[in-house]
Amino acid sequence: MRIVVDAMGSDERPGPDVAGAVMAARKFGDTIILVGDKPLIEAELAAHGQLLSAHGQPLAAHDIAGLSIEIVHAAEEIVMKDSPSAAARDKRDSSLHVGLRLVREGAADAFVSAGNTGAILATATLRQTGLGRIPGVLRPAMGVVFPIDTKPMLIDNGANADAKPEYLLQFGVMGSIYMERMHGIARPRVALISNGEEEGKGNLLIKETIPLMESSGLNYVGNIEPKEFMRGAADVAVVDGFTGNVMMKTAEAVAGYLLDTIRKNIMAGTLTKIGGALARPAFKRVRDEFNPDEIGGAPLLGVNGVVIIAHGRSNPYAIQQAIGQARRVVEGGIVAAIAEGLK
Amino acid sequence: MRIVVDAMGSDERPGPDVAGAVMAARKFGDTIILVGDKPLIEAELAAHGQLLSAHGQPLAAHDIAGLSIEIVHAAEEIVMKDSPSAAARDKRDSSLHVGLRLVREGAADAFVSAGNTGAILATATLRQTGLGRIPGVLRPAMGVVFPIDTKPMLIDNGANADAKPEYLLQFGVMGSIYMERMHGIARPRVALISNGEEEGKGNLLIKETIPLMESSGLNYVGNIEPKEFMRGAADVAVVDGFTGNVMMKTAEAVAGYLLDTIRKNIMAGTLTKIGGALARPAFKRVRDEFNPDEIGGAPLLGVNGVVIIAHGRSNPYAIQQAIGQARRVVEGGIVAAIAEGLK
Repeated sequence: MRIVVDAMGSDERPGPDVAGAVMAARKFGDTIILVGDKPLIEAELAAHGQLLSAHGQPLAAHDIAGLSIEIVHAAEEIVMKDSPSAAARDKRDSSLHVGLRLVREGAADAFVSAGNTGAILATATLRQTGLGRIPGVLRPAMGVVFPIDTKPMLIDNGANADAKPEYLLQFGVMGSIYMERMHGIARPRVALISNGEEEGKGNLLIKETIPLMESSGLNYVGNIEPKEFMRGAADVAVVDGFTGNVMMKTAEAVAGYLLDTIRKNIMAGTLTKIGGALARPAFKRVRDEFNPDEIGGAPLLGVNGVVIIAHGRSNPYAIQQAIGQARRVVEGGIVAAIAEGLK
Repeated sequence: MRIVVDAMGSDERPGPDVAGAVMAARKFGDTIILVGDKPLIEAELAAHGQLLSAHGQPLAAHDIAGLSIEIVHAAEEIVMKDSPSAAARDKRDSSLHVGLRLVREGAADAFVSAGNTGAILATATLRQTGLGRIPGVLRPAMGVVFPIDTKPMLIDNGANADAKPEYLLQFGVMGSIYMERMHGIARPRVALISNGEEEGKGNLLIKETIPLMESSGLNYVGNIEPKEFMRGAADVAVVDGFTGNVMMKTAEAVAGYLLDTIRKNIMAGTLTKIGGALARPAFKRVRDEFNPDEIGGAPLLGVNGVVIIAHGRSNPYAIQQAIGQARRVVEGGIVAAIAEGLK
């Protein structure tokens, strides 16, 4: 398998991107194609003995000679403040464009990037320079699997700030196929996120989507609130990309705020500080459980190829996991299954 | 001051509602008008010596003879599964209708209920049987002050699942007036909740609202994400009621999930359990900080009278706080200020 990794993606690029690629090449034995500023990537690979793992230990056995790593140069760089549409239109020599072109031309099987999400969405969806859509797909959507015990998917997580009922229906189909093939769930339970479960709740979009869901053949279980989502009432929770993105970011922000507040209060007294030290293994387990790095990245479903969007704050381990996810999406035949499922 | 309390509101009605009313009558010296099933309310008042405070201690000095408490009978009851519009249209003898009528007719200054939110919204907004809107208000909105250190308001929290740019503008005006008068903030910072701060982010609704905000005279500080909201980047965060409701419920659900997970992990080992016991005062402070009971309820802004919507799970203390909030909204002249501000 040949997987393209955007070396110029993460906030700390190209360090974590290159290190994660090396880890993945070693772990999976695949060919990794690093795309970006070639001299920078080469310097990073050369300095690789100095890199630390996600847990702070130096990565052992740094001889990368036996690994299958290729470099493809890309002269331009996309930065966070680039407008997605302008980046998609104008920066044809960016790592994003060059990398996606390799997938489009069949020179690679999947694309992984921790870069500007909007630019990835815009570029990947373009038919001329990106991958285009799978036949029948109205709008690609970004799915995100929440790192909680039941591992539910929220889709769309921001690809479409404005949606229509028929888009939401397809998000449900694509999310269902992903969860069935990737997480081994037979007949995934599909729900709509709403402001209440009772009949009559929901905005116009949700109300118009309900009959489509009911007659879809999906295992549609109704409308759920965020509380039920967190309790695992659905495997695939469908929502427009604006609300989905706000929901996901609220979850992250509240978790961060709460953990900070607990830490501050524990550090404020001697006894509580001792208690906190004794309870540290429990807190560590909680942090490990909530670790989005384990999940990998967010699959961009509906484009005609495998694209995994990793978090901008990815460390090498997270990049490795996103690459591992990409190879499983390729092996799972998700793209073909979506094409089939939407027929 | 005369404040109506819906005795048939909370999940455990009429216990917490009546007890909270007694606490408020004692604390503030106002007249409290309990509306609901008269025999039930009388029995509750008679048994009042048995009631426990929010902290589990019996409420001392239970002689309610010196307090100004009145009872007004309402023959019908609205339950959670009643459709809001049907309840508003048909249950004219419910505590909700009877209580709001007292405010409309000038027999009381404010209305407090922990009942079915949708039914309160629908009934209060009706011009014939409720309070109607303040002249100039397009849509009333529900504001909720988050119980985090910076105490920001999110508006709309669910009154309008579908909104228009001119509604959002008014939500900003009403929220700003509330935060200025009730929380003493000069020129409150008003922001729009969006899926990104960069230009070009947002759904169509947000994009069309931005120019209205910019030319409004409000202290508009731009678009913010949930992370910035939690960090206190705005005093008033404006959003449509669907997204706002999902956002608020996500915050509650994630906080509950995270605290449960921490508790489980602490209880899973002997040392961590001891640590947890030592750290208990810190956890208690965190719980107290996040306690929405301190805030009171959610003001329904834009209706032509003072309405405070308390949580269905309210205990007596929360009801007392909501009544205290109602009297401050009356004293602050919020209704007149909104009428003036929208001219």
